[in-house]
Amino acid sequence: MRDVFVAGAFMTRFGRHFDRGLGSLAREAAEGALRDAGASPEAVEFVAFGNAAAGILTGQEMIRAQTALAGSGLEGAPMINVENACASASSAFHLAFNAVRSGQHDVALAVGAEKMNVDDRNLANVALARAVDVEELVADQGDSVLTEGAGPLFMEIYAGFARDYMGMSGATRHDLAAAAAKNRFHGSLNPNAQFRQAVSAEEVLASRMIVDPLTLFMCSPISDGAAALVLGTREAAQKAGGPLVRVRASAVRTGRKQGPDDAVPRAAAKAYEAGGIGPEDIDVIELHDAAIPAEFIVLEELGVAADGEAAGLLHDGATRLGGRVPVNPSGGLLSRGHPIGATGTGQLVELADQLRGRAGKRQVEGARIALAENAGGILGGGSAVAVVTLLERMHAS
Amino acid sequence: MRDVFVAGAFMTRFGRHFDRGLGSLAREAAEGALRDAGASPEAVEFVAFGNAAAGILTGQEMIRAQTALAGSGLEGAPMINVENACASASSAFHLAFNAVRSGQHDVALAVGAEKMNVDDRNLANVALARAVDVEELVADQGDSVLTEGAGPLFMEIYAGFARDYMGMSGATRHDLAAAAAKNRFHGSLNPNAQFRQAVSAEEVLASRMIVDPLTLFMCSPISDGAAALVLGTREAAQKAGGPLVRVRASAVRTGRKQGPDDAVPRAAAKAYEAGGIGPEDIDVIELHDAAIPAEFIVLEELGVAADGEAAGLLHDGATRLGGRVPVNPSGGLLSRGHPIGATGTGQLVELADQLRGRAGKRQVEGARIALAENAGGILGGGSAVAVVTLLERMHAS
Repeated sequence: MRDVFVAGAFMTRFGRHFDRGLGSLAREAAEGALRDAGASPEAVEFVAFGNAAAGILTGQEMIRAQTALAGSGLEGAPMINVENACASASSAFHLAFNAVRSGQHDVALAVGAEKMNVDDRNLANVALARAVDVEELVADQGDSVLTEGAGPLFMEIYAGFARDYMGMSGATRHDLAAAAAKNRFHGSLNPNAQFRQAVSAEEVLASRMIVDPLTLFMCSPISDGAAALVLGTREAAQKAGGPLVRVRASAVRTGRKQGPDDAVPRAAAKAYEAGGIGPEDIDVIELHDAAIPAEFIVLEELGVAADGEAAGLLHDGATRLGGRVPVNPSGGLLSRGHPIGATGTGQLVELADQLRGRAGKRQVEGARIALAENAGGILGGGSAVAVVTLLERMHAS
Repeated sequence: MRDVFVAGAFMTRFGRHFDRGLGSLAREAAEGALRDAGASPEAVEFVAFGNAAAGILTGQEMIRAQTALAGSGLEGAPMINVENACASASSAFHLAFNAVRSGQHDVALAVGAEKMNVDDRNLANVALARAVDVEELVADQGDSVLTEGAGPLFMEIYAGFARDYMGMSGATRHDLAAAAAKNRFHGSLNPNAQFRQAVSAEEVLASRMIVDPLTLFMCSPISDGAAALVLGTREAAQKAGGPLVRVRASAVRTGRKQGPDDAVPRAAAKAYEAGGIGPEDIDVIELHDAAIPAEFIVLEELGVAADGEAAGLLHDGATRLGGRVPVNPSGGLLSRGHPIGATGTGQLVELADQLRGRAGKRQVEGARIALAENAGGILGGGSAVAVVTLLERMHAS
């Protein structure tokens, strides 16, 4: 085994790209990451391509990477299509990491791409209903879920999480709104974010109710976008110039159920063990706030906040830019957007930029160790998949 | 990097399993492979799950492994969902191989599973139309291909290959029929095959015309099934007992176009280079005869037959059981069946059994080096994906 480094990173702006297809977004991200790495497409020896919803949204199954990346100059490389619901892109990153770490390949590319805004505005809901056990869902709601979707299914699930969390911790609606407002403020500083307007906690509370207690501004939007990273050996990364960022650990776990057996705490435990560090060592976090209660719940699952104490960290300013451990400096899924199969690499591009001092107005000063948490699907009441990745800026040598 | 061995291998019978779902098939294969390896599900550290068509055929996208393998005891492991059209399962095998080779994991499981026979008999065609560039197909044939399919699309493509090959090589319809009859004979000896009745070349020619010059018995059927392999370190494989089978190489390539740039010759060249051997060293082959011309074309792309000479090998008896290099001793896709996302691991289970001397009446005596060729999808007139794997029986040590 050898160390693996980020040689290049790039993302498209996340948002509504009505005039662009999956391939256009994926190629922009892949080409941007290669340009950042100073590498030609021909240098890429392995491509892992994360996408979750194109099967439903565009009809393309089976050879998503090969069609999306046609004409990119990458056609010579092995391409692997990876699906893991909203954790597809970080799963692809995991495979690219393994490919370099194993010594099999010197340069690997992880791409996450998703195109969700299509003419039929309900089709994104139809796709999202495939991120749970479909057989169970059909048994419960009938065959129509396959063609009509199940409404705001994930927001109903997250609303349940929010109610449970509020009951357990004493957190209030205003606490949820304040966390959302914090992420909206971060997003206002991010040129790649879908939403770039800061809002107050009061405005979050006053926005349209989606599923009680979640209002519109507490829920991630329907987004299009792509994000890619070039991984390589130390030599490949040094060639690219700039501060060296090492992949300290990548851990994927499948869910068993809610609670300590949930995929998120289990993936975090594995990443901490593999990385030889603990939650106290993390300087900056991107986490999977598909809806706002996740920010509190995941901070506790990661061990960054004690049980029931995550809202306290927010009110102390610890999780805000300038605080001890800024959370979602990109704006998170809530403000940066959530093109589901691209979100994982979107988080990692943000963190690579943070560690390389390229995050502009949202820069976390002096950040050395970064954690990304990306979750996908629901099974047995918990996340079906979770991926926790640790990145580390190396000292100049 | 370290050597990787097959610790266990198992497949369901391929065929029409009208009363069983994807999960039932996948779990039977996974449990069988674990039993063969003498390993518990808890020992598995990584699962790569190949499936191509469940998104269309069952509605389940995104978390296919997690739903199919729920209740198997494997829920603790990382699961990665892999799609690569008809090469999905060998792509999953490639990832499991990498996971062990890298030292990241000591025991990995590759599963391929597909359930194609469903109440709506046309749905398999609807799914297969997703293994080409869907945007191009829709532009050509209209939106209805997304719901109605494009008829025997792949058999039309293979019929074109057959006509081109016959024109180039001078091979005749009777040559094609003789190759199909050879594989039907092999399949008659395989208890896991979908079709177990030998037929003559004359019967192949007399069967119903699908797309000229391909008759029914020259085309692979619609199948259900699953096949799994446990990969591990030398220690893990020794624990299982029996002859040791090493994975000598695994190469994945994406297609550029037909001819020497096609994915199959490029994957073969890479596998030979990584394995340090050539086509003359191969003792037994499983190749992707989705329709019969592929047997001739691929033997030439692999360098086992000279250009235009593959039919000669057949008539010499070289590719028949008992010959110099038996091809498709399992019966191939034609007789064993072609559950598309399971075919790649189906080939590898057959070859592992051949190398371990467990192939019963279809045993290739003394086989030491085996090659599997698995191809998927069509892009630019050639295979979108090809995977070539080399397995090797180790001398007792």
